[in-house]
Amino acid sequence: MKTILTGLAALALAIPAHAQEQAATAPSPNEIVAAAAPDEWVRIAPEDLLVMTLAPDADGNARQVVIQLMPPPFSQGWVHNIRLFARSGWYDGISVNRVQDNYVVQWGDPNYDNPEATGAVKPLPEGLKVMGESDYKTNIIGDDLLKRSRMPDPYAGWTTFIEGWPVGAEIKTVHTRDYEAWPVHCYGMVGVGRNYSPDTGSGAELYTVIGHAPRHLDRNIALVGRVIEGMEHLSSLPRGKGELGFYADFEKDKRTPILSVRVASDIAQFPQPTFEYLNTESESFARYAAARANRRDAFFIVPAGGADICNIPVPVRRVVSE
Amino acid sequence: MKTILTGLAALALAIPAHAQEQAATAPSPNEIVAAAAPDEWVRIAPEDLLVMTLAPDADGNARQVVIQLMPPPFSQGWVHNIRLFARSGWYDGISVNRVQDNYVVQWGDPNYDNPEATGAVKPLPEGLKVMGESDYKTNIIGDDLLKRSRMPDPYAGWTTFIEGWPVGAEIKTVHTRDYEAWPVHCYGMVGVGRNYSPDTGSGAELYTVIGHAPRHLDRNIALVGRVIEGMEHLSSLPRGKGELGFYADFEKDKRTPILSVRVASDIAQFPQPTFEYLNTESESFARYAAARANRRDAFFIVPAGGADICNIPVPVRRVVSE
Repeated sequence: MKTILTGLAALALAIPAHAQEQAATAPSPNEIVAAAAPDEWVRIAPEDLLVMTLAPDADGNARQVVIQLMPPPFSQGWVHNIRLFARSGWYDGISVNRVQDNYVVQWGDPNYDNPEATGAVKPLPEGLKVMGESDYKTNIIGDDLLKRSRMPDPYAGWTTFIEGWPVGAEIKTVHTRDYEAWPVHCYGMVGVGRNYSPDTGSGAELYTVIGHAPRHLDRNIALVGRVIEGMEHLSSLPRGKGELGFYADFEKDKRTPILSVRVASDIAQFPQPTFEYLNTESESFARYAAARANRRDAFFIVPAGGADICNIPVPVRRVVSE
Repeated sequence: MKTILTGLAALALAIPAHAQEQAATAPSPNEIVAAAAPDEWVRIAPEDLLVMTLAPDADGNARQVVIQLMPPPFSQGWVHNIRLFARSGWYDGISVNRVQDNYVVQWGDPNYDNPEATGAVKPLPEGLKVMGESDYKTNIIGDDLLKRSRMPDPYAGWTTFIEGWPVGAEIKTVHTRDYEAWPVHCYGMVGVGRNYSPDTGSGAELYTVIGHAPRHLDRNIALVGRVIEGMEHLSSLPRGKGELGFYADFEKDKRTPILSVRVASDIAQFPQPTFEYLNTESESFARYAAARANRRDAFFIVPAGGADICNIPVPVRRVVSE
């Protein structure tokens, strides 16, 4: 087995020889992650992985996006629906219909809710759960959240990590230790498109964040997962010229077809895609988060003294069998 | 004269008829900006506008990016250099060499500091200022900063807006009211690539932020401006497969040529591009910022209660002459 680390690097040009010889004063966040012990990594259940295959790009290159679905207690009704959409083949043949710069990429049925549509709307599968606004957040009772390291946050409440996910939280009742917690809109997080409240969306329309964290959406839209591989296939798509970044009628050939979406545990082909995340309660994660907030590796002069939760992306790596 | 507003919109599908009839409970941030009085807008000096023309895209469409340079007191040595690079034609014929997902797009001389380069490094023009690490921030003395609305910030110090720019600030000496202030790394901000400290870069290599605000770079790299039009031509470029998102040797045809960079005041063609920003000390900006932090327009259920400075982009609009 070997592992490949994704993401995360410092801003520098190609490093000249004299700089490479300069000793770093402290390990970088990447070096801390690379040195994490094997038992600090947590395997992601194959049932929680979606493999989305886009049509090949203009040069014929394959494009695959892997999404990690959220574990309990968050958004499980929508996660149920999303597995149902995937397993019934409903997502096969839909497309990316919206790319709004510094905001979201959104995919779904191109004929749904589209005044310019010429085709029929795809009927939804049986067995979908109907979710409500109260499901955007979760009640958690106990001392557990109190023990975690909390980060100050310009938005309501405070932020922390729960089982590998960035969340906001707020105490509701002090004497019962009753909290509300909710996932937050960081880069690459995947959510459920909806119309005006009280509609909360079924999971037929999904989006991912491709810009600065739109945290005002927290507790207003359901988050169900995050892109853990192939994000660049979505974030580099041409921006739509229609309202809200939808592809306008004159450019509908820019819609990227989605050939298939599969739950990884249903894929017969060996090896199934396998991923791990760095346990957010591990010693290495704590050191990594502290280093993100206070960069002391060679490139840096002034450590920031803090970081917002979306600038501490949870390390995820693909496990490659040999 | 008429004006076109750029950017900023809510996450929604195409809006169905019944929802359009639903009255919004409060104006949206966009509606507040659209209703701002003409004298709340500030004309950007043509001397502070750079027009960067990229090679046409694969379909032959023109690609133009407009950058607003920072006014005093920030980063003026680098801004001097950048005008010098532009006016001497040095930037003409360089290319976009690095696109790292959720981080930066960087452009400069493709042969500089590139171990795989086959061409010669372009000699720098005469008259460049040599900048130091102390120039990443600015001393501001007086009561002025104290009077502004400050926002709490997970990073060091606090944040506010000065003359249309998002800045971090920190008090240095209480009795003299001596502050340090520095521009912050929001989406679309433009900075000066550098190697290891004490090098601070000349302005020959520039980058812009295409992901979540990398605020750990504040006070570690010089910020000199922001992209105010055509950001999508940079943010949607294919990500590089080399280290740090540089285009690797095998994909160097992906480098986007930069045909020219001109200071707007030097452009003979009429009309010169003209832009305005919403005065960050205006009443409308205060209402806009409050609405960004507490969305109460129709789509929203729970107002956030706050926002980080990079989630309050300063409205900028092109002024179109008729």
